[in-house]
Formats: sequence, C-alpha cells, structure tokens
Amino acid sequence: MLIVEYDGTRYHGSQFQENGCTIQGEIERALYKLMGEKTRIAAASRTDAGVHAKGQVVSFDTQSSLPLETYVRALNHYMPRDIAVSVAYEVKGNFDVRRDALRRAYRYHILNRATRSPLTDKYAYLVTRSLDIDAMNRACQALVGEHDFAPFSSRIEGSTVRTVYRAEVSRQKSMVMFDMEASSFLLHQVRNTVGGLVNVGLGKIEVETFRELAYSGQSGVIGPTAPAHGLCLMKVNYADKSFQPLVSM
Amino acid sequence: MLIVEYDGTRYHGSQFQENGCTIQGEIERALYKLMGEKTRIAAASRTDAGVHAKGQVVSFDTQSSLPLETYVRALNHYMPRDIAVSVAYEVKGNFDVRRDALRRAYRYHILNRATRSPLTDKYAYLVTRSLDIDAMNRACQALVGEHDFAPFSSRIEGSTVRTVYRAEVSRQKSMVMFDMEASSFLLHQVRNTVGGLVNVGLGKIEVETFRELAYSGQSGVIGPTAPAHGLCLMKVNYADKSFQPLVSM
Repeated sequence: MLIVEYDGTRYHGSQFQENGCTIQGEIERALYKLMGEKTRIAAASRTDAGVHAKGQVVSFDTQSSLPLETYVRALNHYMPRDIAVSVAYEVKGNFDVRRDALRRAYRYHILNRATRSPLTDKYAYLVTRSLDIDAMNRACQALVGEHDFAPFSSRIEGSTVRTVYRAEVSRQKSMVMFDMEASSFLLHQVRNTVGGLVNVGLGKIEVETFRELAYSGQSGVIGPTAPAHGLCLMKVNYADKSFQPLVSM
Repeated sequence: MLIVEYDGTRYHGSQFQENGCTIQGEIERALYKLMGEKTRIAAASRTDAGVHAKGQVVSFDTQSSLPLETYVRALNHYMPRDIAVSVAYEVKGNFDVRRDALRRAYRYHILNRATRSPLTDKYAYLVTRSLDIDAMNRACQALVGEHDFAPFSSRIEGSTVRTVYRAEVSRQKSMVMFDMEASSFLLHQVRNTVGGLVNVGLGKIEVETFRELAYSGQSGVIGPTAPAHGLCLMKVNYADKSFQPLVSM
C-alpha cells in the first residue's frame, strides 16, 4: 500500500484509460520498471481529470520482497516529477484499499480576490466577487449526517445514500477552503457542492433554498460543477491506525 | 505603481537582461501592448533567477490617462500566466520605488520531510533530515538589529550595514518557513542566511559558531546559498500607508 501525492494538472484522472496519461498508468509503469512484473494497482478514491492529491492510497499484489524504503525511493526515482510516493506499508492479502476505507477527506481551494494569482492558479478556483463565508457555513449544516445525496450528482449508479462527517468553509486571507469528509462520494459530489456553496456565498441563492434542494431527492439539482483544479484528495482513513497516512498535509 | 505577483520558475530574475526572459521584460512588453509607448519600469527589490514574488512593487512614468482598473485588467490580459498585477496606484513624479521603500519582507519555504512533494516542489527547498527549529530561532537572534551583514554576501558593493527588523523560523507540519524583514538586502543575503540556518538546524554547526561568523565582518562566510526556488518576496513597505499592498499574502 502506497500513500501517493500528485499534481493532477496534466492527467486524465486517476484511473486507467486507453488514451491519455493517468495517475494509475504512471504508477504501474514505475512499478514495472522497479520490479519487472506487470502490476495492476487499485486506488482508494477515484479522482477526476485535473484533481490533485496529497493523500491518495493505492495498493497492489506482489511477490517481490524489496524493503519498503526501497519502494519509496525507487518509485520516486522512476515516477514523473508531478507524482510521488510518501510512504509504503505492507498489508495483508485480503486488504481492499477501496472497501476497507472508512472515510475520504477532500479539500477545495477557492481564491477569493479581484485578480488571478500566478502562485496559486493551478490549485485554486478564482472567484472575484466577495464570498459570504457565514452563509456558506450555514448551508454546510445541511450536508452533515446520513442522507440521500442524489441532488449532488447527475450520474447516479446504485445507492446515493452517504454519510458526511464534516463539511466546513474557512478563510485564510484571500484563500477560502472547503473541507469535506464522508464515507465515500458520488461522482462530482464535492465539486457540485462547491458550485452550490459559491452560489450561496455570492447571494445568488438563499441558504434555505440550498437546504431544500439538498433534501429534494432530485438528481443533480445542486451545482454547477466547480472546476477540477481547485480540488485535492487530502486523506483516506482506515480502521487499522497503523495505516494512517504519515504524509503531512 | 503596480503590485506584482509572479512564479519566477522560468525567469532569469526580475531585472532586464539582453538574453533571457525576465520579469521586467514581460511587464514592459505588456505595458507596450497596452499603451503603445516604450516604458522602462523600476522594481523595489531585485529578485534572482527562479525567485518568486507575491508583493513585488514596480513603477513607471507615463503620459497615459487610463483608469487604474484598466491597467490591472488589461495588463493581466497581456501578461503571461505566471505574472499578474494585483493592484495599481497613481504616485507622484518624485516617487522612487526603490529609495522610498522602507522595508522588504521575504519568506523562504523549506519542505522538511523524507520525500519530494509534487504539490510544493516548485516553491520549497526539500530538506530530508529533521530540522531543529528552536536552534534555528536562537541563531536568528544574531540577525536582528543594525549590523554589518558582509558575512552573508560574497559579492560586496558599497556599505554592508543593514537593519533587520525580523528574522523568525516557524513550522506548519512539514513546511518550515523563514521570515526576514530588513531595510534592504545584500545580494543572496536571505538565501545565504537560510543555508547557514539549515546547517544549524541539522546540527552541523553550533548556534554559537553561527553567531561568531555572523559578527565576524568577513565577507561570505555564512552559507551555502540555499536554492532560489524556496524564496518569495512577500511585501515592500512605504511610509505612505496608502501604498500598502492590498494583495493578500
């Protein structure tokens, strides 16, 4: 099991695709260079094209007996500059990196100022009109708990019930951060939530309207989908505390 | 007068050069596109190749009567993605962006963890062994005040006496930040200071040795010069408070 950090800018998402450069493809290529065996990895949380990660978790089966430090050092050598392994753990064969994950934590960065920023443009969505953080946090209260989150996704497969443990907006000078932790997420759920919250923050929709839409059960009514580049997968939690990502965030 | 932010990665420094892409060259090119007149800008603080800025200040003379908002919007349109104007002010003809500056504030980022980081590698110097922040802060006490800073620069022109108002190391998880504010700086002064402080933080030199070298009056004995990409010009202060950079940092 590897904790992986990446700058998603030039990737077509985390998952393998026939055409286009993916995080999965690059990690599998580096593993092949290291071990000489073709390996399929699984990832704890799928990230869309352009989304970043500080604490993605991936796992794979191997017969290799390389020391864990060698995995970290060698993979960081073979991997492109925009992907790196922070930590490697040995896990049992029945471990499932996706099913065993208890929580995923995402952070969305919004740069809330009048002009673009060369130093943060790749990692934050620019909103030039002033956001009402208090109103956004009141809207966030509708998110926490076990609910039907169909309104937050327009492509629905299976159950849309999820448990949200945390949903909170904070501001550090002009950088506004939205932190969301849940059992797991529907497709585009965080980005659609951000789109809805920004509309609340700009006064385009009332907190009460946001709440009504959030509880409406109607698919895809919260949005628009905020841009991918503001989003970052921060952390994945497992019951076994020894799997806690050691990467600092 | 413009407050300018830039990602210095692909630039050969802030100042105009015959060969190579510079911040000055790009801003002058954008001003030419906007106003149709060739203009020379002056910058408050020279930054080396690869150094970033959140609050660089530049000024120029013009006959143009464009509204200030137009300067900001139009220059951000004409400028490359890695340079942006945050604010524009009108200043009197006798204003000197360099001589009238009272203080310059720089921040140096050190990523202090075992592995490289795709999300911060362009803006932070990676130090993989653990740094003793307390020792570094004790060494910082030797910096504050009016001193001869010759030991912190190997290329000396004119007086090497400067006043340092603040020198402080802090840690946020694995990111270590060194903040330094002074009347002005000698060439490579911040980067040489960081090189010396890192040696203190790693236990390679004692705090007392750092102090002795700092007060030795001998040119260039503190170092090595830390890499440019960890350094960022944060802010320039002027007596006239209406010139305070409005860009958030």
